[in-house]
Amino acid sequence: MAHHILTPTTYHNVLGTLPAALTVASGDTVTTETIDANGWDKHGKKVWTGPNPMNGPIAVAGAEPGDSLRVDILAMQPIRPTGWTRAALAENVVDPDFVTALPPRDRATWTIDGNAGTVTLQDPPAGFALTLPMAPMIGCLGVAPAMGQAISTATSGEYGGNMDYRRLGPGATIWFPVSTLGALFFLGDAHALQGDGEIVGTGIETCFQITFRLSVEKRRLIWPRGQTERDIFTLGNARPLDQALQHATTEMTRWLEQDYGLDIRAAGHLMGQAVRYDIGNVFDPAYTVACRLPRALLAGYSAA
Amino acid sequence: MAHHILTPTTYHNVLGTLPAALTVASGDTVTTETIDANGWDKHGKKVWTGPNPMNGPIAVAGAEPGDSLRVDILAMQPIRPTGWTRAALAENVVDPDFVTALPPRDRATWTIDGNAGTVTLQDPPAGFALTLPMAPMIGCLGVAPAMGQAISTATSGEYGGNMDYRRLGPGATIWFPVSTLGALFFLGDAHALQGDGEIVGTGIETCFQITFRLSVEKRRLIWPRGQTERDIFTLGNARPLDQALQHATTEMTRWLEQDYGLDIRAAGHLMGQAVRYDIGNVFDPAYTVACRLPRALLAGYSAA
Amino acid sequence: MAHHILTPTTYHNVLGTLPAALTVASGDTVTTETIDANGWDKHGKKVWTGPNPMNGPIAVAGAEPGDSLRVDILAMQPIRPTGWTRAALAENVVDPDFVTALPPRDRATWTIDGNAGTVTLQDPPAGFALTLPMAPMIGCLGVAPAMGQAISTATSGEYGGNMDYRRLGPGATIWFPVSTLGALFFLGDAHALQGDGEIVGTGIETCFQITFRLSVEKRRLIWPRGQTERDIFTLGNARPLDQALQHATTEMTRWLEQDYGLDIRAAGHLMGQAVRYDIGNVFDPAYTVACRLPRALLAGYSAA
Amino acid sequence: MAHHILTPTTYHNVLGTLPAALTVASGDTVTTETIDANGWDKHGKKVWTGPNPMNGPIAVAGAEPGDSLRVDILAMQPIRPTGWTRAALAENVVDPDFVTALPPRDRATWTIDGNAGTVTLQDPPAGFALTLPMAPMIGCLGVAPAMGQAISTATSGEYGGNMDYRRLGPGATIWFPVSTLGALFFLGDAHALQGDGEIVGTGIETCFQITFRLSVEKRRLIWPRGQTERDIFTLGNARPLDQALQHATTEMTRWLEQDYGLDIRAAGHLMGQAVRYDIGNVFDPAYTVACRLPRALLAGYSAA
Repeated sequence: MAHHILTPTTYHNVLGTLPAALTVASGDTVTTETIDANGWDKHGKKVWTGPNPMNGPIAVAGAEPGDSLRVDILAMQPIRPTGWTRAALAENVVDPDFVTALPPRDRATWTIDGNAGTVTLQDPPAGFALTLPMAPMIGCLGVAPAMGQAISTATSGEYGGNMDYRRLGPGATIWFPVSTLGALFFLGDAHALQGDGEIVGTGIETCFQITFRLSVEKRRLIWPRGQTERDIFTLGNARPLDQALQHATTEMTRWLEQDYGLDIRAAGHLMGQAVRYDIGNVFDPAYTVACRLPRALLAGYSAA
Repeated sequence: MAHHILTPTTYHNVLGTLPAALTVASGDTVTTETIDANGWDKHGKKVWTGPNPMNGPIAVAGAEPGDSLRVDILAMQPIRPTGWTRAALAENVVDPDFVTALPPRDRATWTIDGNAGTVTLQDPPAGFALTLPMAPMIGCLGVAPAMGQAISTATSGEYGGNMDYRRLGPGATIWFPVSTLGALFFLGDAHALQGDGEIVGTGIETCFQITFRLSVEKRRLIWPRGQTERDIFTLGNARPLDQALQHATTEMTRWLEQDYGLDIRAAGHLMGQAVRYDIGNVFDPAYTVACRLPRALLAGYSAA
Repeated sequence: MAHHILTPTTYHNVLGTLPAALTVASGDTVTTETIDANGWDKHGKKVWTGPNPMNGPIAVAGAEPGDSLRVDILAMQPIRPTGWTRAALAENVVDPDFVTALPPRDRATWTIDGNAGTVTLQDPPAGFALTLPMAPMIGCLGVAPAMGQAISTATSGEYGGNMDYRRLGPGATIWFPVSTLGALFFLGDAHALQGDGEIVGTGIETCFQITFRLSVEKRRLIWPRGQTERDIFTLGNARPLDQALQHATTEMTRWLEQDYGLDIRAAGHLMGQAVRYDIGNVFDPAYTVACRLPRALLAGYSAA
Repeated sequence: MAHHILTPTTYHNVLGTLPAALTVASGDTVTTETIDANGWDKHGKKVWTGPNPMNGPIAVAGAEPGDSLRVDILAMQPIRPTGWTRAALAENVVDPDFVTALPPRDRATWTIDGNAGTVTLQDPPAGFALTLPMAPMIGCLGVAPAMGQAISTATSGEYGGNMDYRRLGPGATIWFPVSTLGALFFLGDAHALQGDGEIVGTGIETCFQITFRLSVEKRRLIWPRGQTERDIFTLGNARPLDQALQHATTEMTRWLEQDYGLDIRAAGHLMGQAVRYDIGNVFDPAYTVACRLPRALLAGYSAA
């Protein structure tokens, strides 16, 4: 269980089958520093272009197509005292006849106080002030897609990508379906905070030091699955939200059947009365919906 | 502030401009007993047909088009020891090529223990058991729609209707846009519990004694707005979910501007980093999305 | 086979179970004059309010729930020398970030030359002129919806309504599912011309004298079906277009199986390689998609 | 204006920045033979795997990002006497509760008679026969996407790809936005016939000899544009159909403004009353909608 430091010498704007920047063993941990979604680093210097420059890829020895890559997000430390957001709702999240009422999509700056664990909007509109608890998360992470594809970090799919789901922070685990030898894990686009849906088109975009563990598991999945201390969840990425929800709901059903050993009727009863849906993003080319269940309700079940 | 008992002599399967079953003054409270979504009463007798038989309408003296009707849900007491659900996910919430894997949409019965505050699935699949906390809510409620329309209780719109949003339970308040003299309030289809999305096509369908207060307010809204002890929320009803979300997001923006006096850029910052979306239902002809914000963040703001 | 003249004394902005303005026998013909979508009559006088004032309803003796009402559109004669349109694309048919580029939704006037069979834009933008062939159609027509509903003429459903499908002109036949005694047929909102999708939110809105035949048939349908000299078609009304298309495609499959006696695999082969889809409207609350097949391909098949 | 023969030595299942199989000058013509969507060649031998193996890429000297690549489809000759289709509608084009009524998605074989210009279903269901006119088209064609992406030939985007639009046959022209040096043109997945929407998931899949001309033009576009002898059209690729239609409609507006010199109000009038929409496919991960106008209506307009 080695620990590695990944210091990027280049970044990527696609997730694809690219040369590994680092190769690790299953179970190893890695620490790396990410730059922000537009390529500004922790010193405020533009070192790459957007969208969402990725660190990696990291190959995990032994990972093969049909496996899953487990990513445990162990720690996230902000490494820049400021982040930025857009000041206006995105055009696609309001009624079409309300679009002309939206203000310009100006950039706003936020102070990030890592010790206090807060973010504060700088230069707010008159009469307004906003300080919120920091809640770090990774906006874009995933593995190389199938068939040798290389796909923009603006979007997402079965392989993960730009899902912008706020629960993907410290303490969370996420599994991706492996499509290529070594899995090839990428990450970046971390946020100090983000509301559901990323409806201004950004979270609070900044730089983080991130530590995570990568492990190979022999479990076949179609869409990403994850867990927090309290919940398990599946992620579907598509448009419209309806289809993203269908993907996530179907994957959760498969998970309950295959790994928890539930009869499909039992899965239906449980999901029907206890499921929660979260909207990861409703801004990117593919939207993201999470289908979530409390782990407490699954305590007694296990497939094997 | 009188208190009324509404004992239905008939039910309705539409929300429309129908003769008032009761007329109250603004601020009055009403207690009524609802039957379940398929028309079974508290004795288990089929007294009406589905979908979602409504109690009402209740006219509120003085309510005029352009006003809003405020409904405070004060108490909900289950009055039947059982409720029912469907055993299978609805076809429209899974991937189209997974539909054939779904089990039959059989009806299942649940024991409702009002004292313990629990619901328990009867005759579960082998090796499975499920007891969950009760969380009463009103599935279908709203006012007469505009233009003399009468619309099925299967669906929803600006006037409310079959929104199946799980936060519409005791302690919640909801405002509807008034379109006709007296507003004409309807309610029914109460659930002992329901997951997000009502993805088996039902909550735990049963009968409740419900007490609520009706008040007229001089505030123009387009979509329903509500609040709980912790949050405010707006509701959009449409398909796909994307459009329901657009309606709810637009209405929240209007609310923050008009009632809380926020600049639209301030509203954008607040919503962008703090908003939560809930999916009410993803089963009915119109889906329902809630756009939600913590009231604590709005403590300092007020339009007037 | 009597012929009737229906001279409206009132109009309706909903399709619902309203008192019949006229009762006819199955097979009778009717001539009536419609006013335009905003309630201007053939003299240019505002006699009713929008949306889409309806003539009717016309009861057809003997029509019962489960039957279908066949409407043959026999003739449409424009009775006002002008029509009007909007000058700009609707906000919802362009990319959300293009909405601010749209011009104001001003009203434009067109000259209608019934003898020449042309429409000509008055006061066009500089350097532009536009004369097009007239192609009359009925924008909104249908029967009373099920369950005593009364639904705005702005939208559409299984009962028909505001479908804005350009093939519903002289020579076309359309069948509606009957939900109430007498069927209760409504019509109005005729256009001298309209492009696919009604993407400026209007066709060329004007007044027509319309002659049609109403007949009751003992055939159960779910969505409207129709035919022209060349094609048969089914109509689905919903959002998004994907769902409207699902409704129309499913209804066509049922039609081919039930009335033409095709095996479902035969229906699949025929539709797969020969189907055409038309977009009726992509502007109203429910969008309309037509699923269409050439009658020549069905010449040899008949269920009974 | 040289003529080239491209004899593939390999095929590709992505459109991406791959080594050119051939480099031509702007204006040159190319003839090549394509294999079918599943990789069977003209001898019925499986020589590659699906989805949609591509010939190419062909680099066009001088093509630069920001240009457009014009592709004139000059001739398509079927080179195999059979093609295949699926026998059942795809699950996603029917109502979710109709999915279980669909037959198995068996493969069916069709006889292709290139001299007669017909296709005939082999072994049809009892009592059914189907011969249709052949109408060759290219299902998947396009250029390397932006940012070094490599995207599956199952889907489509701004760069083209698997659009399955039936008008892309002999005599048609299509322009793609160039994102990389040389443009890198790919093609394959030709059909002897296909209905709108590709609703059985295939056209009549076979092998063709295809001749086309490639030319570089200095015109910036966002989505593919095309023309036939009668019409011009734009193509939008996305889900749901609503968004594909928004892309196509927006691109048509830009085209009318930029190349035909129309005022945006003139463009709105023309499109509003004369536009036609076609559905390319409603089966692939991204759906395709065409926005189409008659060239006759644009005879008098030109930007330059």
